[in-house]
Amino acid sequence: METLLLNKDDVDENTPMAELISAIEDAFAAYETGDAQMPAKSYIDLPQYNGDFRSMPAYMDAGDWDAAGIKWVNVHPDNPDDHGLPTVMGTMVYSDPENAYPLALMDGTELTMKRTGAAAAVATDHLAVEDASSFGVVGAGVQAYTQLEAIAEVRDIEEVVVSDVDDDAVAEFVDYFSDRFDVRGGSISDAGHCDVLSTVTPVESPIVSAEDLGDHTHVNAMGADAEGKHEIADDVLLAAKLVIDDHAQTTHSGEINVPYHEGVLGDDDIDAEIGQIVTGKADGRTDADGVTVFDSTGLAIQDVAAAHVVYEHADDHDNGYPFDLLGV
Amino acid sequence: METLLLNKDDVDENTPMAELISAIEDAFAAYETGDAQMPAKSYIDLPQYNGDFRSMPAYMDAGDWDAAGIKWVNVHPDNPDDHGLPTVMGTMVYSDPENAYPLALMDGTELTMKRTGAAAAVATDHLAVEDASSFGVVGAGVQAYTQLEAIAEVRDIEEVVVSDVDDDAVAEFVDYFSDRFDVRGGSISDAGHCDVLSTVTPVESPIVSAEDLGDHTHVNAMGADAEGKHEIADDVLLAAKLVIDDHAQTTHSGEINVPYHEGVLGDDDIDAEIGQIVTGKADGRTDADGVTVFDSTGLAIQDVAAAHVVYEHADDHDNGYPFDLLGV
Repeated sequence: METLLLNKDDVDENTPMAELISAIEDAFAAYETGDAQMPAKSYIDLPQYNGDFRSMPAYMDAGDWDAAGIKWVNVHPDNPDDHGLPTVMGTMVYSDPENAYPLALMDGTELTMKRTGAAAAVATDHLAVEDASSFGVVGAGVQAYTQLEAIAEVRDIEEVVVSDVDDDAVAEFVDYFSDRFDVRGGSISDAGHCDVLSTVTPVESPIVSAEDLGDHTHVNAMGADAEGKHEIADDVLLAAKLVIDDHAQTTHSGEINVPYHEGVLGDDDIDAEIGQIVTGKADGRTDADGVTVFDSTGLAIQDVAAAHVVYEHADDHDNGYPFDLLGV
Repeated sequence: METLLLNKDDVDENTPMAELISAIEDAFAAYETGDAQMPAKSYIDLPQYNGDFRSMPAYMDAGDWDAAGIKWVNVHPDNPDDHGLPTVMGTMVYSDPENAYPLALMDGTELTMKRTGAAAAVATDHLAVEDASSFGVVGAGVQAYTQLEAIAEVRDIEEVVVSDVDDDAVAEFVDYFSDRFDVRGGSISDAGHCDVLSTVTPVESPIVSAEDLGDHTHVNAMGADAEGKHEIADDVLLAAKLVIDDHAQTTHSGEINVPYHEGVLGDDDIDAEIGQIVTGKADGRTDADGVTVFDSTGLAIQDVAAAHVVYEHADDHDNGYPFDLLGV
């Protein structure tokens, strides 16, 4: 037996986005219905290196398929300057739940970007206006690309506005997508007046105010992934239909973590978990809704769902590098 | 940058046992002195497959070197009959603590056997009589081999007695070691009257009684790794100098878990943790000691210490298979 090695390019090339979005929706549903196991992330803190490691094991059963695995991921903010390496890197072990054989080892960094885009697409599908055709993104980094790729699968996006303080990053994004969309750089307000907005910045002081948004904009707040991070003004969060991926994670380190701990925003202000919406236990967008916000922190079940899609596609297409790791 | 892939044979061939024993001793010391991090194992239980997954992340700092990583390991007892696979398989991700780059991906099954043998050798070095020359082992499975390989590094073993209900397994063990030791099959009592005994069986009812042991035998109780498992009679454990690897793990699933939960054996009966002995905070064998017992459950810090030794040796000797997993 062999374990399939899937490097960054393999993960990129073996992620059919429509399938991934469907699998991520299945993951949110399985979490809601109790058909998933997701032990709390455990941390190893290394202050001497200004970094940490996180282990994210998970299992989910979607009915037709199930998946197990673990992502081992770090956050080392000094990496770019000190080592020429990304701040965040991930390694994913994807295992057969029935017999535990490690079916694949894959780049968890690319996987994270893909599944994060897919999560935004699931939320967008349920919360954006049906005829959404414009997409704005604040932050032109790597995550911006998968946001657009994924969201364009669930709405017929034609017009795209990208906003970033880094003009080069804006130009690069525009250039990359110019043959597929009517894409241009613009202000935060320009981006926020699109039908769908994704925010993918690491800021700790809100940069998107109520005036920056259209009356019915759906906002995917993707950037906050640690205590203190905060992209969207509190009055927007309080007035919006507010949907989260997980209560523990979002109140700890998601977009709502700052106002939640300041007592500005409470549990009554959270309208639903995304799992409740995809299973029909809570409404997606209704005619009464104005601005909607999805606070996404990223769940371990998303990683195993994404790994399932990547592995199955790669295996079907003889992609990747089979390697006999265990000798069994 | 590339990640080094190390399969089962690579792990076997890149584990200089003397170095490994030294590194495992460093791991026990780091744990005792607070220079290690070892979050509790987290479990994913899959009763529908009669199996589970365990994640074992750890970091340790030995002063001269440090190491981080995670072992993802399963227990699926139906595997041999239903899938032709081992009950237990492991995959190890070994990372540079400073920047978190995954230096190596390696077979965690072979690694577990090696580090378990090395743990027994550390205990034997501190607890067996100085002139120990005979070694007995109860259970002739795969773990028996690494027990002898490791213990022969710390004592000049000449005579070996192997005891198992499976005659073929005994013959195979004798044949394997016959050119290096005076090795023969024998009863449990024959094995137990050696200077050092290792027990590596999965039994739940004790098979080693006080009469089976010599007056100064050191016993490595390695077999118990789950609630209910129990190899050594309670009166032996109560009378012996009793050393454990970790209080939480041994009372939960080690050799002492049954008498501990029955109230037969309490904290007062535990003489030391192995980390206290290797750091000199508690005594190893003294002239007053008769039978000594080491209850080993296996710690995540042993895995990262072992992975460090394997990776460094393989890297120095250009062994293994470099693979660009992350594309950074």
